[in-house]
Amino acid sequence: MKINVVKSVLDASDALADVNRRRMTEAGITCINVLSAPGSGKTTLLQKSLPMLPEGARTAVLVGDLQTTRDAERLEGVTAQVVQINTGRGCHLSPSQVAKGLDELDLSAIDYLIIENVGNMVCPAAFDLGEHLRAVLLSVPEGDDKVAKYPTLFQKADVILLTKIDLAELLEFNFDRVREDLAHVNTAAPVIRVSSKTGNGLEAWRDWLVAQRKG
Amino acid sequence: MKINVVKSVLDASDALADVNRRRMTEAGITCINVLSAPGSGKTTLLQKSLPMLPEGARTAVLVGDLQTTRDAERLEGVTAQVVQINTGRGCHLSPSQVAKGLDELDLSAIDYLIIENVGNMVCPAAFDLGEHLRAVLLSVPEGDDKVAKYPTLFQKADVILLTKIDLAELLEFNFDRVREDLAHVNTAAPVIRVSSKTGNGLEAWRDWLVAQRKG
Repeated sequence: MKINVVKSVLDASDALADVNRRRMTEAGITCINVLSAPGSGKTTLLQKSLPMLPEGARTAVLVGDLQTTRDAERLEGVTAQVVQINTGRGCHLSPSQVAKGLDELDLSAIDYLIIENVGNMVCPAAFDLGEHLRAVLLSVPEGDDKVAKYPTLFQKADVILLTKIDLAELLEFNFDRVREDLAHVNTAAPVIRVSSKTGNGLEAWRDWLVAQRKG
Repeated sequence: MKINVVKSVLDASDALADVNRRRMTEAGITCINVLSAPGSGKTTLLQKSLPMLPEGARTAVLVGDLQTTRDAERLEGVTAQVVQINTGRGCHLSPSQVAKGLDELDLSAIDYLIIENVGNMVCPAAFDLGEHLRAVLLSVPEGDDKVAKYPTLFQKADVILLTKIDLAELLEFNFDRVREDLAHVNTAAPVIRVSSKTGNGLEAWRDWLVAQRKG
């Protein structure tokens, strides 16, 4: 009985995600759901990389956060539209919250819609929000064992960003270990090493974004 | 209606947590629930600090993890008893999982029982497991904005550990910002700065543990 209830909730959730996706596709939007642990550098990555997109590329960001508007404030100036979704005690964004966020945006003026999910390696992975693509960040200070520990998150990634790589040598981060663990869960997603601090790898990430529009 | 269902689940959860707590208290155990984001250094902190406890102090660790037994393996040798609880897709430990974990332990041979929760700053904060005390870790690379963004986690902390402080200067971590944010959510918990790498602060954390037994 309990399992049935959970399943029906997920079905409704997935149905709503499909509606979100159709709505964005019809508006010509490419939507990317960005997931990671807290403090992996999602907001900083967007701050640094959105201005690197080709001239004329129109961006918007939906930011999920428990309480504050800090992330949304940090994104003002680098993107034309920002909507903050406060989830309160909710540990992930839901498709219904994203639907409400879409209501707040001028969808006709967006090429890339980035959804910055709540910082959490577990719950957001289970919820399709209607995105077209998923970007998953793993920051070097979190440790090179995280792919094996949170496989669900990495399984569904369309691109994986290893962030804060400027700290890799100091923290003796083992890139081979990540590669070996990924061989078991996801061999399709490209892995991009970036440092928002030094700028290393940001162009590769920008190029990946551009390629998704051409596809 | 929905709210009622959620409430009754939490009531059952809290009731079971109380049973766990009573069981441990009767056995003379001090139980500490350790919470943090993934990769904040929970396991490493235990590896380094448990051997620093006074001679004769008997420890055990319940380790929550989604999939692997890596953390449990890392703790062998520094504690007499380790039980691994795989939560699968579950984003936090529950009191019923802890109850099963207690069944696996020789409770008569434990002074300190450490529960290493699933790495997650959101969900574990909402679940009383029956612990006597909560330790919350925030690692420097996660950023100095996390107290404001995850207040619930820090609100219920009995001690707060700022970990990986060897990186504070390099990452321009603002300790004052953390202090100011904590002034709004938790002024009672001591804040201990530690680096498991350099050993800095580990004695203060050990002393805090020792003081809880005397209380």
